[in-house]
Amino acid sequence: MTYVVALDVGGTSMKGGLVTRGGEVTVLAGRPTGREHGPDAVVQAVRAYVGEIADLGRSRYGVEPAGVGLAVPGIVTASTAVYSANIGWRDVPAEAFTPPGVPARLGHDVRTGGLAESVFGAGRDVADFLFLPIGTGIAGAVVLRGEPYGGARGWGGEIGHASVWPAGEKCACGQIGCLETYASASAVARRFTERSGSTVTAKEVVERAVAGDPVAAEVFGEAIEALAIALASYVLVLDPALIVIGGGLAEAGAALFEPLRERLAGRLAFREPPPVRPAALGPRAGMLGAALLGWQAAGDDDAGADWSLDVLRGGSVS
Amino acid sequence: MTYVVALDVGGTSMKGGLVTRGGEVTVLAGRPTGREHGPDAVVQAVRAYVGEIADLGRSRYGVEPAGVGLAVPGIVTASTAVYSANIGWRDVPAEAFTPPGVPARLGHDVRTGGLAESVFGAGRDVADFLFLPIGTGIAGAVVLRGEPYGGARGWGGEIGHASVWPAGEKCACGQIGCLETYASASAVARRFTERSGSTVTAKEVVERAVAGDPVAAEVFGEAIEALAIALASYVLVLDPALIVIGGGLAEAGAALFEPLRERLAGRLAFREPPPVRPAALGPRAGMLGAALLGWQAAGDDDAGADWSLDVLRGGSVS
Repeated sequence: MTYVVALDVGGTSMKGGLVTRGGEVTVLAGRPTGREHGPDAVVQAVRAYVGEIADLGRSRYGVEPAGVGLAVPGIVTASTAVYSANIGWRDVPAEAFTPPGVPARLGHDVRTGGLAESVFGAGRDVADFLFLPIGTGIAGAVVLRGEPYGGARGWGGEIGHASVWPAGEKCACGQIGCLETYASASAVARRFTERSGSTVTAKEVVERAVAGDPVAAEVFGEAIEALAIALASYVLVLDPALIVIGGGLAEAGAALFEPLRERLAGRLAFREPPPVRPAALGPRAGMLGAALLGWQAAGDDDAGADWSLDVLRGGSVS
Repeated sequence: MTYVVALDVGGTSMKGGLVTRGGEVTVLAGRPTGREHGPDAVVQAVRAYVGEIADLGRSRYGVEPAGVGLAVPGIVTASTAVYSANIGWRDVPAEAFTPPGVPARLGHDVRTGGLAESVFGAGRDVADFLFLPIGTGIAGAVVLRGEPYGGARGWGGEIGHASVWPAGEKCACGQIGCLETYASASAVARRFTERSGSTVTAKEVVERAVAGDPVAAEVFGEAIEALAIALASYVLVLDPALIVIGGGLAEAGAALFEPLRERLAGRLAFREPPPVRPAALGPRAGMLGAALLGWQAAGDDDAGADWSLDVLRGGSVS
């Protein structure tokens, strides 16, 4: 049985797994990146984690991994982690993370999640869509003609910092009125606390909004309006076949999707909106996309098309 | 000498020419589309115009045209003018416009202009840019990986209807705060008239703004601010290597470009803006792009790369 090692490296934690060519997934326990010890320590931590996953693969399948795929934050090419403000590294080659002799490929974290949603997730039936995970921050994977698109220099997808209220609230990034400052999960929690004095999670804000709390409803409604404004502009410029919302806020379900669809349609006068659907792969999208990168590194560009969502969701966890 | 027939069909008028494989351009006098007589009349007028240009080509070069390229408004595929609200036609095949037996290709008007700017105009050195002609309306050609991109169904590029002030002025399209309602040439003229009572052209508004007229400066400044807001969002989502501004308003030159560059940079806190440059091909971009479509129809995808801007600008006019 051939397999790849797949890793989704976030700012503070990382998630890894083994994924066979047939889509059998073994998810390992996540672990911290240790970024408080500096970028070199993160590289060492990633390398050690990849090594342990590869050891598990050798013992389970009796062969070397066919490839390694890594989803990493910041600016990234297939062979180099160019820069991450979050981690602090610069120009780290893929080989620094991986066992000698095993082919490796890197990808941008959000776009790698978008790749997985594209190949066998919520976007599997379309070529052109936006994958928008909404968590502590907001960034998107712009999937065009079947491929995640990062722009001229890999800085694309920053829809979280598109201004929806250009004379509105100041964002932590220094700009005015960014989508993220109204609609990220952390913004929803922060803005509720500012108005109510209560410290709660975004999930609780949604629950209170659904239960009729007027302050929670106002804050959550403003988040949805900000999303509708940003998505309307996206739709007008890029005419996607689909919008896929993921991340923690998507767990709000109908409380998010129903008003969002309605407000998006209300912001579009001369065209229909595309469907707006929840992501299929949840928080594992990045790791599963990294598995596709690992198979690409192994020379297999077709992996994933026949993977089943049920197998993935039922993947064993060691 | 081989040549193609190229036509840029707008709502009310059309421009045609003969373009040789070497980039020698003969521009013919434009003529009305006659849309007031209905869509069938427009098809007949286009067909007649194409026929006359082909006759000129036969008499000048002694051979049949190698192909015909047509830039048309609305929704369009390479072989069919699917729909235009402006003209009213539906599902007109390319053959309806062209002499029997001559291969033809259609393209979207703005994207065809963007194709020309991409192949031998202001975008010739980059693969990813926005071509934004600003005239009576605003629509863009989103050029990605060297090709104009129209989205899942060909409705893309409508950046003129992205909302820059979501609680702002109502646009003629029915939406609120569209870029076009602040920054098109007709919006600049209209908004100046509303505030001053004087009826002038956008060009005159710019001249008055430069001369120190406070109302003109305010209206033109608001147009530039609206452009900066829309372009900042575009840059964040798509990370273009370049922004190319064309159309009548680009003739304002430094009065437009200098404050626009400054305000765009001011709207971007954590990344540099791309260069913002004037278009190279002027109002002929659509016709020249149609010539490239004509060569593509003839099986020659490489035409244009060696065309010189000087030759194009000096093209003889019959």
